[in-house]
This record gives sequence, structure tokens and C-alpha cells, in this order.
Amino acid sequence: MTKIVLVVQCRDRPGIVHATTGAILALDGNILESHQYRDELSDDFVLRVTFETSATKVQAEEKLRAELAEFEPVFRLRTQDEPYRVLLIVSKIDHCLIDLLYRHQIGELAVEIPLIISNHRDLEPVAQSYKIPFAYIPVTLESKAHAEAQTLKLIEENSIDLVVLARYMQILSDEMCDALPGRIINIHHSFLPGFKGAKPYQQAYQRGVKLIGASAHYATGDLDEGPIIEQDVARVTHAHDAAELQALGRDIERRVLAKAVRLHIEDRLVVVNDRTIVFE
Amino acid sequence: MTKIVLVVQCRDRPGIVHATTGAILALDGNILESHQYRDELSDDFVLRVTFETSATKVQAEEKLRAELAEFEPVFRLRTQDEPYRVLLIVSKIDHCLIDLLYRHQIGELAVEIPLIISNHRDLEPVAQSYKIPFAYIPVTLESKAHAEAQTLKLIEENSIDLVVLARYMQILSDEMCDALPGRIINIHHSFLPGFKGAKPYQQAYQRGVKLIGASAHYATGDLDEGPIIEQDVARVTHAHDAAELQALGRDIERRVLAKAVRLHIEDRLVVVNDRTIVFE
Amino acid sequence: MTKIVLVVQCRDRPGIVHATTGAILALDGNILESHQYRDELSDDFVLRVTFETSATKVQAEEKLRAELAEFEPVFRLRTQDEPYRVLLIVSKIDHCLIDLLYRHQIGELAVEIPLIISNHRDLEPVAQSYKIPFAYIPVTLESKAHAEAQTLKLIEENSIDLVVLARYMQILSDEMCDALPGRIINIHHSFLPGFKGAKPYQQAYQRGVKLIGASAHYATGDLDEGPIIEQDVARVTHAHDAAELQALGRDIERRVLAKAVRLHIEDRLVVVNDRTIVFE
Amino acid sequence: MTKIVLVVQCRDRPGIVHATTGAILALDGNILESHQYRDELSDDFVLRVTFETSATKVQAEEKLRAELAEFEPVFRLRTQDEPYRVLLIVSKIDHCLIDLLYRHQIGELAVEIPLIISNHRDLEPVAQSYKIPFAYIPVTLESKAHAEAQTLKLIEENSIDLVVLARYMQILSDEMCDALPGRIINIHHSFLPGFKGAKPYQQAYQRGVKLIGASAHYATGDLDEGPIIEQDVARVTHAHDAAELQALGRDIERRVLAKAVRLHIEDRLVVVNDRTIVFE
Repeated sequence: MTKIVLVVQCRDRPGIVHATTGAILALDGNILESHQYRDELSDDFVLRVTFETSATKVQAEEKLRAELAEFEPVFRLRTQDEPYRVLLIVSKIDHCLIDLLYRHQIGELAVEIPLIISNHRDLEPVAQSYKIPFAYIPVTLESKAHAEAQTLKLIEENSIDLVVLARYMQILSDEMCDALPGRIINIHHSFLPGFKGAKPYQQAYQRGVKLIGASAHYATGDLDEGPIIEQDVARVTHAHDAAELQALGRDIERRVLAKAVRLHIEDRLVVVNDRTIVFE
Repeated sequence: MTKIVLVVQCRDRPGIVHATTGAILALDGNILESHQYRDELSDDFVLRVTFETSATKVQAEEKLRAELAEFEPVFRLRTQDEPYRVLLIVSKIDHCLIDLLYRHQIGELAVEIPLIISNHRDLEPVAQSYKIPFAYIPVTLESKAHAEAQTLKLIEENSIDLVVLARYMQILSDEMCDALPGRIINIHHSFLPGFKGAKPYQQAYQRGVKLIGASAHYATGDLDEGPIIEQDVARVTHAHDAAELQALGRDIERRVLAKAVRLHIEDRLVVVNDRTIVFE
Repeated sequence: MTKIVLVVQCRDRPGIVHATTGAILALDGNILESHQYRDELSDDFVLRVTFETSATKVQAEEKLRAELAEFEPVFRLRTQDEPYRVLLIVSKIDHCLIDLLYRHQIGELAVEIPLIISNHRDLEPVAQSYKIPFAYIPVTLESKAHAEAQTLKLIEENSIDLVVLARYMQILSDEMCDALPGRIINIHHSFLPGFKGAKPYQQAYQRGVKLIGASAHYATGDLDEGPIIEQDVARVTHAHDAAELQALGRDIERRVLAKAVRLHIEDRLVVVNDRTIVFE
Repeated sequence: MTKIVLVVQCRDRPGIVHATTGAILALDGNILESHQYRDELSDDFVLRVTFETSATKVQAEEKLRAELAEFEPVFRLRTQDEPYRVLLIVSKIDHCLIDLLYRHQIGELAVEIPLIISNHRDLEPVAQSYKIPFAYIPVTLESKAHAEAQTLKLIEENSIDLVVLARYMQILSDEMCDALPGRIINIHHSFLPGFKGAKPYQQAYQRGVKLIGASAHYATGDLDEGPIIEQDVARVTHAHDAAELQALGRDIERRVLAKAVRLHIEDRLVVVNDRTIVFE
């Protein structure tokens, strides 16, 4: 039996679910899970179905494409034996990297990690201890375009499906983001109220915030402003100094990023009109 | 256009979704929302669909019953112009009652409340101020069976769909619960670790718990042990005395109960093997 | 026995706690609760002590002022029989008002509420049902200065200690805020990431936020930016529409505002360098 | 300058704070942080003060003991250059162990870890990779007393201050717990409602709980019932299977345990009448 995850995105029109379930039935498929979303304003429609079938992936795709052709859908179809190939990009800070590698190691995160890229050498030993190839690509103002070209080349060569910025302190160019739409996840601290600039935990302390948080989102040209995937917060008090806020921030960041990655590799995320639909 | 909520429960068999969406298509219906659940162990299947159709409710029900007959489903089908009729049962404590009445008043809770029943007269003025009939049915050890019979009669006469125990400090008999399966919601404080007995907030204080919570569940014979609908907690410290824990408890209780009621009246709750499936 | 809450604010210097506890000891006082805070950057120091004494309030104040004179402290000293006199200011939205009145009614909020002011007549019946005087003070661009003068006059006449903006949709002038520093509490929705402008819940929906929240803070000239007192959030999903976000927002707002008021009337809040120290 | 943490526990009597601050003043000490707690029922009193002084630790202790002698206090006095020596005891599950070692490595947890003990060899490589001695002490029904004796001997030899059961699946004997009162921290999953027995996450799934949680507590004879230090929860849905609940449980467990350890090594925990007072 093949276990297939299907995500169909199209204009909403009567019959789309019926056509899809008809095709699955014809494939002798058994639906395991199904979620759908319809955007009331834009009429966008998304369907995510997992099903088991005795057909092959190729047969399933052929059948579904044929039966759904009239709806002109955007299509995603994966089987369980096709794990996502994930590139981790980091700078010097290791808490998100180590957490993702740990979850990978114990089988919680069923992906392949063929490569880690960094603009610093600091975390090379971590990559080595997990026996994952490490590429050092320094980034300066002048070399940025070249560094991104190198990165894109490695993404190509390694057949990367998903790029995770596991605390990568560089802003990607619009070109880089556009080259991988909905395929780059970033993690970002967030505060109530929000504020920009350096030393955010110092600012949070000075502002006396009572909650600190983190947001994972898809990277777009504007680093902080891509579609939000997942957010969480922790309560803090005036007694927490900036270092303690930062320590709490690490906990939230690694947890939120890991969840975002998990949702992505289970194909539970679809971006509709700059909002992330989460089929959980 | 009629807006219909359909909940179908049956054994899982290939074709059930296809048959349902086929019937909806034949009714010229447009699916607005759809959720489904399949219990891996028991093979139970539940589908909740909302759709708009130019057909009447009677036509829709007829068509769906015919098309789904072979799956021998349990059926729920409601239209938006059929608000749930809700009976509130209380004792002396008013925070859940007042909160539900407020939500009702501002239109957040789209139900009819034809009656409030209590085993005490304390909250009669509240009922009066909201212009809702109030029935005083005292309960003693001897009169309990009689009181429940009176209550069931009023439920019948008032065509009650849902009974909400908004802090009703009496345990219902097994017979009463069995007479209204999945139609009585209760709210209950919960603690980590759990403990039984009187003065729970005093116990929570003495135990030094760091979280206090509340659970809403469907009432079954065993008052605390029905299928859980919704739970929430709040953090507390050693500095909170029993009265403060109780005040926090009130906030959680009213919030959790209101959410459980909202989920029920939107037909988002289905009990499968003593677990509550929440289609949210 | 008199139960006294004392808040002392001064430069940090060795001996301040010793001098205070010495004075309390000399008053035959028994310390019930004590909190202190020292700002590492600015050297500001705050001490909050509650104690029981057979002395009168006047005697206690005299003794403490004498013994602490060399530290040149800012002083707050209250007894349990001096409840805060609270003015509630509202517009048309009632959830925060009704929640505060309910908590007041059941004794959870031990204050006096001699007056409700509004720029609309909508909530006058609520005030009447709780038998609280209601002043209608309309506000237009032209009449704003006059309206604030009227309000300040009523604050004076009613010996108001604390002003609570229980969803008052007007921005107070800098002059008004400056006239009542640390004595006006406002409630405000907050989001991750933050955004300004009208229809915030609509914006939150469009942005696909996964958390919505509220912040209570002291009003300063810039309405949203006063010292934060309390914040909370709730998880939301893409499936919540703007109306549902708003309903959830109401729950958080009333809870956060009530907590902020409680903290204030228990003298647990001190503003130090634009941060609120919360002695909880 | 010496930075000292002082914890004083005694019967509540007027003058205790004054005497303590007097002694600190005489030591030319500057108070940095101060918390106190008084149990209304039992009249137990606890004071935690941190202060900087030019005196040595020995001088400070001498002075404080002399000045507080009349209050017959229980005393704890530590300086910053005396890190806690922590023994980690594990079985086969590694998430808590690895998390604590990571926090230790990056300096978030300022302790010494001279030894890891396990009843299995599975995690020996983890200990080796962090260059921490590892003792394998198998436990069978027959060997339990012997194993505990060995463990106590190693605790003695290694001058262990704190034992952390980082998912140690054995119940310690009453004797072992009594030998180290308030010095053994355990982590435990918790659910609303609570339940006992094997496969807790499977039970949580079958029960349809909407929250799963973890509690850290001091071990006493009854493994689950020692004074609670810290608790947290995460929301779950019917769609999470037992494996997913377990994954979420790992996240909560490691976070709650790390916090409990941090609170302990900062001397922020005092057990009073079986409740843990947390000075945070």
C-alpha cells in the first residue's frame, strides 16, 4: 500500500471535493485524514487529503490530474517514502540547530539533512558530531550576492526541498526569497508591543513587557513579515533581566521553529493570500 | 439559500465522503466547511460538513438519507434558523450563569434560553433581570428522583436540546444522564495532580499546585468522568491563598464552559468511544 | 489592629530596609508580606510591605516618615478601610465594564465606584442597574478640552483615586494624562506582530496571526505606549474569522483589565523608569 | 566583594527581618534581592536575601548566626563561587539529560556535573561525549537496596548537593528519599484528570484529554506526591495520537525540569509544610 498526501489548491467551485474523492475511490484508496479551507473573500480553495492506495504514486497522480483537470488546480502529492530534504542555515547561535538535530536523531523529525550552511565556522563541530556535511559561506556586504548564488547552487545540487533559517542572522535578498517561495522558514522573536532594532531582549526588558514570544514564518523579501506559521509566548516579570529573557527566548524559539518545520514536512501548511492555513 | 450543518457518523468504508459530496452536489450545494475523523482503532468515522443550498432542509435530508443509506449512518442535520434551545441549571454560584447570559445577550451565543432551573432561590433575581422563566426545584436525598422527573418533564415541555450545568452542585443520577446522552454539559475544576473531595481550592493551596484549571465535559453517570470537551489552566503561585485561587478558578470555569457550549451549539462536538472529537 | 500597606520609593542606599523594619518594629508591627526591587541600572529602590500594628495610621505614617527621612523617599501608605475610589470611563462597548461591575458586586474587587462617565448614552442603563451615577460627557474634536476639564472636575469632586478606561475609544490629551500620572489604567488589544490602525481584528485575520492578546497599561500621552501592567494572549487559527477573534479578544481584555485593576488597588504596582514593577 | 545568598527559615516573630538586615548592614552589605514568606496557618517564616559584602563568607555566616541566634533559624548561606554539584540519574530516555547538558554547556545552568548514574548502559555514550564520568548501576528487585547504597556512596564521594532524576524510571525507596530530603528533584508527566498506571500517553489519548502536562517535584517516599516545584501544560487535540502526545510531553518535561533545577540552584525554593515556596 502507498500512503499519499495530496494538497490541491484552486478556485472554489462546486464539485471539487466530489471529483477528488471520486478519483481516490477509483484508485481503491482509503481516506485517512482530510482538511479543507475556503477563503470567503477570495474564493480560494485548498484541500489536503491523506489516503492509502494499492496504486503507485505515478498512477495516483495521473488519475488525480486527469479527474481534476477542469478545476485547474495547483498540485502537491507526496508519499511517505519521500522524506523532505532539509538544508539548515545558521550563524553562530546553536540552540535551534541542536534542537532540530536532536529531534531528527530520535526520529521525531522524519527528514533528510544533507547539508548545513553557515556564514561562520563556529558550528562546524556540531555538524561534524552529527556527521552532516558543513559548508562555510562567509557573507559580507560585497560578497552577499555571490554567497547567495553559492547557496542556491548547493540547494540545487542537494535537491533541497526546504530551507530552515535556524537563527541565521542575515537578511536574505528578495531574489533569494523569490527563488524559493514558501520553501524558506525563518524564526523570529516577537514581543507585545513589537519593536524593531538591535538587542531586542534588552528593549523588552526596558519596556517592561510581561510576555516574550517567537514567530516562525515563511521568509519573503521583508524578513519579519512573511506569512506566520506558528507563534508562542512565555510570561516574564520585571525581575527577569535581559539574559534571563534571552534564555526563555531560546526555549520558545526552538519549540516554535521545530513545530513549524514539522507542520511543513507533513504538508500541513498552505499559503493563501499571504496567510498560512494550518491543517492540524 | 439554506445554510446546513451536517454531521454523519458511521463505520469507515470507502466511498462515504464521495457519496456525501455527491448528494450535496446534486442538491446544488456549495461546501463551506468540512472536517472528518477516523478512529484508527475502532474504524469509526465522522464527517461534519456545512453547505449552502437552494434546497429546503427537508429536501436535503431526504436526498442525503437516500444516498448514504448503505453506510447506515447516524445523522444530524440542522439549519441556521434552528437555534439550540438551552436549559441552564444552577445552584447558588452565579459566575457561569451570568457569563452565559451576557454572551447570549450580546449575540455571541446564538441560542434560545427558555428556562433556568435551580435547587435554590438565590439566583431567581438574575433570571428575572434577563426576563427568563425560573423554576425552583429543591433537591433533598428523598426528593432527588422526583426533582429529576420534574426536570425531565420541563425539558420535554420546553423542547430543550441542551442542558448546561452552570455550576450545579448536585450529582445527576445515572438515569438522568442516560436519558440525555451527549446533551448535558458540566463544568468542573481540575488540578494537577487531581484530587477528590470537598474544598478543592483549599486542597490545591495546601498541595502547593502551580496550575489550576477547569474541564468541561459531557455528564455521564460518573459526574467527573464524562468525555472531556475543553480544558484550560492558569498559573498560580504559593502566594495565592484559597480565595484568590477560587477567583482565578471562576475566570477559567466561565471561559471553558462558554467555549464548550459554543462548540456544542455549532455542532462541532462528536463523542466517539468516550472521546470528544472537536471539529474546530 | 490596623493593617497597613506601605510603598517606599527612593535611591538605593544601605540601611533603607533596616530603617523601615526598625520603624515597623517600634510600632509593634508584624510584617505580613514584603517585596522589594532595585533597578541595577538606575539605582532606584522600591519596597512594599504590609504589616499589622496596634498603632493608628497617623502614628504609623509619622514614625515611618521620621525614621526614613534621610532616604528622602516617595511614600504611599494605606489601610484596609480606605478602599480605592474608582472612576470607570467607557464608550459603547460593555464587556469590560460589566465584568468589573460583576467582580465588584461579588466582592472580588474591593473598591468604591462612585461614578461612570461615558461619551455616549448607550451604557447608562447598565450604570442604573448597578445603581451607580452616570455622567454623559460627549466628546467632539472641538469639545475635547472642555470634556476633559469636566471629567477632571468630577474626578476632583468624587475624590477619585484611580481612573479605569474600560474600553474608552478616545485618546486622552497629554495634559489629562499628566494630571493623573500612574492613576489611569487603559486596556488595549495587542498582536504579534503589532500593527496600528483601524479594525485591528480584521488586520489580525488578514495577517494570519496565531496569537491574539491584550495589554493593560498606565495611560501616558501616547495612548498605547504607557508602562505595561499585564498582558495575556490566546491561540487562534486561520479558521477564526474576524468576529470570532473579536469575541476571544473580549475575553482576554476583560481578564487582563480586571487583573491590572486588582494589582493597582492592592498597591502592587510601582512605575520605575517607565517599567511597571509588579509585586505579586 | 562577595555575593551571598542567604535563606533563613524559622518561626515568625517580630524583629527577624530587622535583625537580618541589621547584620547585613553591619557587614557593610548591600541587599540586591529580597523575598519573604509567612505561612498564615503555621506561622512558619522564610526569608531569602542576596547581598554583596566586602566581608568573607565565614565572617558573614558568623555575624548572621550570632545576630539571629534568638530566632533559632534554619540557615542556608552560599556564595557565587560555590556552584551546586549535581548528580544526574537516568534510565534509557535521553531528552531531559541532553537538555540539561546543553544548558550546562552554554552556561545557562551554572553547576558542576561530576557524575551521571544509570541503571542501563544506553546513555553512556552521551556522558562520554560531554566528558562526564558515568556509573552503571543496574537495578533489579533483589539488587535495589544494594544499588541505592552504591548510589549514596557515590553521592558522598562526589560531594553531591542535588540529585536530578532526569527521567529515571525507578521508584526510590523511602530510605533513599529520607536520606536526601529536599535534595532530589523528579520530573513527572501530569494530566487533567490525573490517572495512574502504565502507558500514560496512551491513556491520555483514550481519555481524550485536551491538555497534557508535566510536574517537577521533590522526591519523597511516594514518587509522585512530593512538594510540587513547577508545572506546565500544552494544548492537544483528538487528532494527536499517542506518539505525538509523547513528543509534546518530551518538550514540556525538559522545560519544566530545567526550570525546577534552575530555581533550586539559585536557592529560590523552600519547602514549608509540604508546599514549595518559589521566590522568583
